[in-house]
Amino acid sequence: MYIEHLVGKRLPDDPKDAQTPGHRLLLRGGYIRQVGQGIYSLLPLAQRACSRVEEIIRQEMNAIGGQEILMPVVSPAELWRESGRYETVGSEMLRFTDRNEHPCVLNMTHEEVVVDLARSNVDSYRQFPFMVYQIQTKFRDEPRSRGGLIRVREFTMKDGYSFHRTQEDLAAYYKECHAAYVRIFRRVGLRQVVDIESDTGMMGGSVAHEFMLVSDVGEDTLVLCDACGYRANREVARSARSYAATEALQPLGNVVTPAKKTIEEVTTFLGTDPTHACKAVAFVGDGRPVIAFVRGDFEVNQAKLRKALRTGDIRPMTEEEFAPFGSVAGFVGPIGLDTSKVTLLFDESVARSPNLVIGANAVDLHTTGFNFERDMPAGTPVHDLTDVNEGDPCVECGKPLRLTRGIEVGNIFQLGTKYTAAMSFEYSEEDGSLRTPIMGCYGIGVGRTMASVVEENHDKFGPFWPISIAPFQVQICCLGTAKDETVAPTGQKLHDELTAAGFDVLLDRRSVGAGFMFADADLIGAPIRIILSPRHMPRGMAELKFRLAEPREDLPREAALDTLVETVRTLAAELGKPYA
Amino acid sequence: MYIEHLVGKRLPDDPKDAQTPGHRLLLRGGYIRQVGQGIYSLLPLAQRACSRVEEIIRQEMNAIGGQEILMPVVSPAELWRESGRYETVGSEMLRFTDRNEHPCVLNMTHEEVVVDLARSNVDSYRQFPFMVYQIQTKFRDEPRSRGGLIRVREFTMKDGYSFHRTQEDLAAYYKECHAAYVRIFRRVGLRQVVDIESDTGMMGGSVAHEFMLVSDVGEDTLVLCDACGYRANREVARSARSYAATEALQPLGNVVTPAKKTIEEVTTFLGTDPTHACKAVAFVGDGRPVIAFVRGDFEVNQAKLRKALRTGDIRPMTEEEFAPFGSVAGFVGPIGLDTSKVTLLFDESVARSPNLVIGANAVDLHTTGFNFERDMPAGTPVHDLTDVNEGDPCVECGKPLRLTRGIEVGNIFQLGTKYTAAMSFEYSEEDGSLRTPIMGCYGIGVGRTMASVVEENHDKFGPFWPISIAPFQVQICCLGTAKDETVAPTGQKLHDELTAAGFDVLLDRRSVGAGFMFADADLIGAPIRIILSPRHMPRGMAELKFRLAEPREDLPREAALDTLVETVRTLAAELGKPYA
Repeated sequence: MYIEHLVGKRLPDDPKDAQTPGHRLLLRGGYIRQVGQGIYSLLPLAQRACSRVEEIIRQEMNAIGGQEILMPVVSPAELWRESGRYETVGSEMLRFTDRNEHPCVLNMTHEEVVVDLARSNVDSYRQFPFMVYQIQTKFRDEPRSRGGLIRVREFTMKDGYSFHRTQEDLAAYYKECHAAYVRIFRRVGLRQVVDIESDTGMMGGSVAHEFMLVSDVGEDTLVLCDACGYRANREVARSARSYAATEALQPLGNVVTPAKKTIEEVTTFLGTDPTHACKAVAFVGDGRPVIAFVRGDFEVNQAKLRKALRTGDIRPMTEEEFAPFGSVAGFVGPIGLDTSKVTLLFDESVARSPNLVIGANAVDLHTTGFNFERDMPAGTPVHDLTDVNEGDPCVECGKPLRLTRGIEVGNIFQLGTKYTAAMSFEYSEEDGSLRTPIMGCYGIGVGRTMASVVEENHDKFGPFWPISIAPFQVQICCLGTAKDETVAPTGQKLHDELTAAGFDVLLDRRSVGAGFMFADADLIGAPIRIILSPRHMPRGMAELKFRLAEPREDLPREAALDTLVETVRTLAAELGKPYA
Repeated sequence: MYIEHLVGKRLPDDPKDAQTPGHRLLLRGGYIRQVGQGIYSLLPLAQRACSRVEEIIRQEMNAIGGQEILMPVVSPAELWRESGRYETVGSEMLRFTDRNEHPCVLNMTHEEVVVDLARSNVDSYRQFPFMVYQIQTKFRDEPRSRGGLIRVREFTMKDGYSFHRTQEDLAAYYKECHAAYVRIFRRVGLRQVVDIESDTGMMGGSVAHEFMLVSDVGEDTLVLCDACGYRANREVARSARSYAATEALQPLGNVVTPAKKTIEEVTTFLGTDPTHACKAVAFVGDGRPVIAFVRGDFEVNQAKLRKALRTGDIRPMTEEEFAPFGSVAGFVGPIGLDTSKVTLLFDESVARSPNLVIGANAVDLHTTGFNFERDMPAGTPVHDLTDVNEGDPCVECGKPLRLTRGIEVGNIFQLGTKYTAAMSFEYSEEDGSLRTPIMGCYGIGVGRTMASVVEENHDKFGPFWPISIAPFQVQICCLGTAKDETVAPTGQKLHDELTAAGFDVLLDRRSVGAGFMFADADLIGAPIRIILSPRHMPRGMAELKFRLAEPREDLPREAALDTLVETVRTLAAELGKPYA
């Protein structure tokens, strides 16, 4: 292809609205075009990279027995009502009515649709296990989008669903799929992907892992132990923090605290510190008031809170909502509330720390000397509700934990029978009994994976495309075409020969300066660049440049024109090795 | 793959809700699953066939310089407002508001999105011509859906868009694309596809062609001339009907026609015939009353009417809507109406026929002796508003026209500057002037094409898949596995060898009878069937069967097991020839 025909305008300057380095380069290089908030078109360069990512995913899914299907973007609300998610999933699921006033949704995931498909097509143990997958558009009405293709509302996703007779079979297949994911991320050229324990969130189920590209521009926080290898999303990470009490227990006693509401105000006023205060954070979950109590020096982790409440639907409490259960905003404490009207959740840090200041559920009044075991009814449950912090002891080995940022590129879930049971999918076992299949699901965002490759593989001039997914493997730059009439035809011949040999080749024979031409080539990021110039032509040679994340001294700097196709073949195989 | 693992239940009996033979077989064979009205999932068999169709389309689009992109399913209403279609397209376009109360649409076609993409990426004559295409989901909220994948609401479509500096360049590219479409339909195995002149409809533009599979189950009516090759959709077809008047003109005169409203009632009452009556058909188009007058023996063609009115938005008139322009339902005639309040459209048949009975715009009153040229103001325009009928003389050669049914599998349009001008897409010409590009667009429905292949290639037992898009090229049936222990392992070995040779192979080694096994094989429709049985094994032979639309006597009925892979390779090449 001629560079002047490639649709996608390269910009000389950084676009104002880029939020991450990768986003900046995808915009500058003419890879993507924003159509609306969180909605993009892929131009030819991005589509080429994404279709290669898809092909790698397809190969690996087929290799573990996946059968490709295609489920619809739109589905009737009925299916989502069957699972109960029509009600429980929030406004990120787009709902609408069609021209016949029939309620529909834009599918943001396909558990309901795939269970409906499976229950109508599978009824015997002989058909198990099986896995079906699709590569299809999803729409998730995110309140905010960012980072180009990193967080968008419309995206292409590979989602796979496996069905099993036993939990053991699911667990074994889950491992196979895990290994396939590791291969996929290596093959597309992501090196810093780690798998971590994750929250099952609105998907439900018991075990889940996320595949995270470690990246400063990631939206998730990862908790890592360099000593023992423990890895978890901060949403579910645990630590071995101790709250050992060495203090003598004080009695309860009220103290007037005029207009002192925050932990800082109260503890300063009382001459103590946040480790001796109990923080109350008020939410409404599924319509019911909830107070989460954590120690004054910790923060409530909303994912853990949602998990404890078993709901995805939580919001902060308004000031008016405190009175009905006997409290007042800013002075909430665990003693004396009407627990028929409010749910109390206690974090370990509160349960195991002595002599805390708590709100007294009256304006300008606090209570000192709160001790959970003494002052709360026996058997009051204790939860893990707080964020793990940098340096906290590892839950596995006790060594200090490290926090880093990550981009979620894939996730896998053991869903159990959540959907199959809710939707009455049964099959006949060998003994004739009816059983409910056990289910796993497996997702990878295609565009996000492609964008993550750029986040990890770039310099300020453009991406370094791994040859496995490069939009063009080879770019031919013809310099000084006006000075030497043989340059452009040589470039054309080479382009045609390499194309015939199966490479995707971009040919630049424009009358522009070398700097301009190379800046464009950097933005396009082909791993192999062939430079033809009046200087090299008389010797029958071409110059070679490589655009690689890790510079290699062992690669040739020039090559004979006569055997260039063979040279490129050898180089391409060599450059492909790390991704094979 | 083992047949017992293939997801997709084959039904012993015909499903009740099938509307066409192909629909019946796709349901019976476990190819598709209905998710909602006009919304389907593709199971593995259908997905395999569709992905091969897509690959053929991709190759042909790339061969004529197409660059693949991906545009979103959802787009903000603004883009459709720019072209004016947000208002003009009816309720088949699904509109909704997102969580931020922003109006959006589900794109049913992508002219607006692609022009926005092009205008932001192309600004110089050097970049022309170019064509971009995508293979993407569309949603069209059809009031009714039918025939499985023939008419659905959600569908996968290849839509391509080309941009040109001159009309000549568009016309030349349009021809190239036309030829590519002919190749695509041949390669996927559709033999009876004809290209016909078509209505530009809501797309606008001047020239358009549809590619129609001639099929009794088609929804469109085609008008064909076997003598000269004239072909057109009945929506736009013209004929050389003559209305030569040999009668002396009668004067106008009123006649009381008590409760005689229809053409039949009036002409019977007056002792004449429908060729001497003027039929008035009342519509509201874009909110304004319209009366179309055609001769009593013809029908109004709504597509032609919409074209004459330049609107897609027409509906029948209600009884209350006649009075304001001075008429009454059942007695409408062209004389004496308030033409500031109603638009009158005359068909040629009315303009050129003498002595017609017309309504007198009063209850129970008609006027006889209407002669258009004499009785209407000079210069009153005349339109073509009627359906062509079987046997009408061809507009090109005068020979009788033939009517048949067809399924539209593709269409191509010369759009001109309708969208580029409305959306202010300009580029710099070589002389520095700013110009508006000229546009063409090119669509193919992927699922509909696949389903059309089945409509054309099947018997009552199942599809005959052309080897170019067959879900499985080879099916191995192992008979009598209990009687002869060597059968199943031989089948497995053959399966593995053929798979390694690049074929998609389905292996059936179930303990079921031959009739049951072959019924399944017929529904799956692999063109090459290998039968292993205790009868053939001792001789080291396998039986061969072929599932072809046209039986061939020259193919072998058995083959040696030793060289079977080579035999299949040769057979596959032979069977692929008609589609190459």
